[in-house]
Amino acid sequence: MTQLAILGTGLIGASIGLGLKAAEGTEDIEIVGFDTSREREREAERRKAIDRRGSSLRQTVQGAALVVISTPVLATREVMEEIASSLTVGTIVTDTCSTKAQVMSWAEELLPNSVNFVGSHPMAGKTEFGPAAAEATLFQDARWVVVPSRSASSDAVETVSGLATALGAKPMFMDAAEHDAYAAAISHLPMFAASAIFRLVRDSEAWPELSLLAASGFKDTTRLAGTDELMSHDIAVTNRDQVVHWLQRLRGAIYDLEDMITDPDRDEEFLRHLAQLNIDHIAFHDGQIGRVEIDQKGSGIPVPGMTDMLLGGALSERLRQMTEDSADVDEKTRQRRRLFGRR
Amino acid sequence: MTQLAILGTGLIGASIGLGLKAAEGTEDIEIVGFDTSREREREAERRKAIDRRGSSLRQTVQGAALVVISTPVLATREVMEEIASSLTVGTIVTDTCSTKAQVMSWAEELLPNSVNFVGSHPMAGKTEFGPAAAEATLFQDARWVVVPSRSASSDAVETVSGLATALGAKPMFMDAAEHDAYAAAISHLPMFAASAIFRLVRDSEAWPELSLLAASGFKDTTRLAGTDELMSHDIAVTNRDQVVHWLQRLRGAIYDLEDMITDPDRDEEFLRHLAQLNIDHIAFHDGQIGRVEIDQKGSGIPVPGMTDMLLGGALSERLRQMTEDSADVDEKTRQRRRLFGRR
Repeated sequence: MTQLAILGTGLIGASIGLGLKAAEGTEDIEIVGFDTSREREREAERRKAIDRRGSSLRQTVQGAALVVISTPVLATREVMEEIASSLTVGTIVTDTCSTKAQVMSWAEELLPNSVNFVGSHPMAGKTEFGPAAAEATLFQDARWVVVPSRSASSDAVETVSGLATALGAKPMFMDAAEHDAYAAAISHLPMFAASAIFRLVRDSEAWPELSLLAASGFKDTTRLAGTDELMSHDIAVTNRDQVVHWLQRLRGAIYDLEDMITDPDRDEEFLRHLAQLNIDHIAFHDGQIGRVEIDQKGSGIPVPGMTDMLLGGALSERLRQMTEDSADVDEKTRQRRRLFGRR
Repeated sequence: MTQLAILGTGLIGASIGLGLKAAEGTEDIEIVGFDTSREREREAERRKAIDRRGSSLRQTVQGAALVVISTPVLATREVMEEIASSLTVGTIVTDTCSTKAQVMSWAEELLPNSVNFVGSHPMAGKTEFGPAAAEATLFQDARWVVVPSRSASSDAVETVSGLATALGAKPMFMDAAEHDAYAAAISHLPMFAASAIFRLVRDSEAWPELSLLAASGFKDTTRLAGTDELMSHDIAVTNRDQVVHWLQRLRGAIYDLEDMITDPDRDEEFLRHLAQLNIDHIAFHDGQIGRVEIDQKGSGIPVPGMTDMLLGGALSERLRQMTEDSADVDEKTRQRRRLFGRR
C-alpha cells in the first residue's frame, strides 16, 4: 500500500480524498487523515474520504509517500514546522493554499532538503466548508495551479500534477508571484468585493426588508461573503499588496461608472460600455477566451478576422446586433431606437 | 374569454405568459402578445407563452382587461404614449420595470383617467434574456412589489397582486420612492458592482490567462455583468441618484476593507469583521432575517435573547464557535488559535 496523508480534512482535503477514492487505479493508496477538529476528522472518515485517522500530525506523515496540507494559509506554516522532522526521505509534500509566495518560502525555510515540495492551488471551491460539503467531483474540469519549488524533483512535479489529473482537474504551471498576482484578480478581488457589497447592504437599517427583496442577483453577487473567515483573512494577510492593489483599482472602476451614469455627455459611451461588457461576458461564459487561447497554443492573442469562425452563434449574433445598433446610435436624431429594446 | 395583453415578450413577459398558462383557473384567459421583434414574438408563440400575436401595439390592447407592459424602462414611456388612446375604459395596466418612480409619473401623465394603473416589479430574473430563456416558475416564491397609483381602484390593485400570486410570487406593497431606494441597494448595486469587477478583470492584459483560472466564485460574483445593456442602462438613468449613492458608499466600504487589511492594528477587527459577515451571510441564506421579520408581523426587529430559539442549527453553532474564538482572541498571546482553522 502507498500511503497518502491529508492534513486538514475540511472541504478541500476531504474532497481530495473522495476524488481519489473514486478515481481509477487508486486501489493501492491508503489515505490517512488528520485534523485538529476531531469532528471534522470523524466526518471525513464516515464519508470515506479517508481510510483511517492518524493519532497526531507527526504520526500521520510517517511513511507517507505524499503529504497534502489542506489548511488555511497561516496554519500551513505551523503544520510544516510540526511535521518537518517526521517526514521520510523522498516524501513529496504539497499544499492547497490560495496564496503561494508565502507558502513556497515557508517550505524552503522549514522543510528538510530530503523532501520534495511542490505547491498547488486547485481553482475550485464552494462557499460551504467542512467535510460534509466535500464532493468527489469538486475539481472536475477546474484548473489546478502547480508551483514547483526550486529543489523539487521532476518525479515530484509529475506526481502532484498527476494528483490534479486524477481528480479531473487540469494542471497549470506557474511561479508563485505570477500565481498570486492572477489569484488576486480572479479570486481574491471578487471575494473581498462580495464582502464589501454584503456588508454595506447588511449594515442598512432596512436590511430586514431588503433581505426579503433579495433575488438570485444579490445572492450570487455576494455568495463569497460566506467564505470561511480564516481562509479569507489569511489570503489578505499573505497577499496583501496584490489584494489592496485590486481593491484600489475597483474603486477607480466604480468611480468611472458613477461618472458615466451622471454625465449626460457620457450616456452614449455608457450604453456602449454596457453592451461591450455583455458581449465579453457571453464570450467568457462560452469559454471563448480560454478556447481561443488554447486553439492557438497559448499565444493568447485572438487572430483578427477569425472572430466569426471561432465564436459561437449567440456571440456572433450579439456582435452583429451591436454593429447595427452602433449605426443607429450614430444618427444625430439619438431617438430611442426601438420600443422594446433587446430584452 | 378574458383578454390579457403582454407588451414585450422577452424573458419577463414570456415567463408571465408561461406561468399563467400553467396556473389553475386561467383557462378562460386569452393572452395576446406583441413585441417590436418579430423573432421574440414568434418564439413566445412557439413556446405557448402567448395564444396569439397582435398586429400592432394599439390593436393588441384593444379589448384587453389587463395589459402588462414588460419592456426596458425607457421604452415603457413610449409604449404608454402609443397605447393611451386605444385602451378600453376600466382596463387595468401594469408594468414590470425595475424602477418605479419614473414609471408611475409617466402613467399619471400619459394614461387616461379611465384606466387603472398599478405598477409592479417582480424581484426575480436571470442573466439570459429573451423568450427562449422564459420559465413558468421564474417568479415562484419571489417577492413581487406592487405600487398602486393614486387613482387605481382596489379591484385593480387586487387584480395585479392576484397576478403575482397566480405566478407563485408574494406581493409586497410599497410606494415608488421606497421601492427605488430598496431596489438600488438590493438589485441595482450588485448589478453595477458586478459590471465594475468584470470590466476591471477583463481589461487586464492577462485576461486570457485569468479567464482560464476563473472558478465559480468569479463567475457568480460577476454574473450580473451579463445583464442586457438596455435594461441596466435604463435602470441607471431612471434611478440615477440612488444608484450613484450606493456606488459611492460601496467605494467607502472597499476603502475601509483596504484599511483593515493594511493596518496591523486592525487585524483582529478584520478577522472579527469577516467572522460576523459569515454569520450574517448564513442567517441571510437560511432566510432567518426575513423569517424573523415575518414571525414578528413585520416589526423587523429581532427580539434580543430569542436568537437561539429562532435560528437554525448551523447558525447557532457558528455563533457559539465565534464566542469561543473571541475568548481565545482576547488572550494576550495572540497565538494562532489552532492548526487547521475552521475549514
